[in-house]
Amino acid sequence: MQGMEKIVEKTLLYDFYGELLTDHQREVYGDVVLGDLGYSEAAQEYGVSRQGVHDLVKRVDRQLEDYEKKLGLVKRFLEIRLEVTQIRTMADRGNISREDTARMVQICDRILTEL
Amino acid sequence: MQGMEKIVEKTLLYDFYGELLTDHQREVYGDVVLGDLGYSEAAQEYGVSRQGVHDLVKRVDRQLEDYEKKLGLVKRFLEIRLEVTQIRTMADRGNISREDTARMVQICDRILTEL
Repeated sequence: MQGMEKIVEKTLLYDFYGELLTDHQREVYGDVVLGDLGYSEAAQEYGVSRQGVHDLVKRVDRQLEDYEKKLGLVKRFLEIRLEVTQIRTMADRGNISREDTARMVQICDRILTEL
Repeated sequence: MQGMEKIVEKTLLYDFYGELLTDHQREVYGDVVLGDLGYSEAAQEYGVSRQGVHDLVKRVDRQLEDYEKKLGLVKRFLEIRLEVTQIRTMADRGNISREDTARMVQICDRILTEL
């Protein structure tokens, strides 16, 4: 059983870079790693060997990590997500001080640099 | 001469997906399309034919557009950039109304959905 964090990470990588995989890779990987299809079931479903499924999953894991190492988009998006959440929290309080608005402008500028 | 808009678009695509090109592609394309090296100069510089440079540029243009068609990250980032700029403008005014904060929360939520 994979840890929850690992699954979240894999889901993010798949969301960002999944379209760069072949249809076959995307389907099998999606079913096995992000869905709940077992290796043997997937092997039957897709008419390949159990070892074939295993190899595909390993290869795709490596490919997705390689894309992230090269492009770093998941990291960038997560940082921005955190910063936007900070702004949202301040705005949601409703009663905004001068310091809050200065801080918001600062965060916005940081995001705009990252984008 | 290419239009300014086209150059901006190509620069964005290159910034996002350039790491997926080979080193050679990235260098030649960077020099010719985003830099100011002419085709003939690039041919001499890289020891290939002028036609070779031409083909490389065409191929890379197509590859970068294909990545964007598949992943759409430049489009996503530009949308978020616009929304963050809206928040920044409101925050920068300093004097924030209840409507402004409600609107900010709304924009933040939209960004968080897109991320």
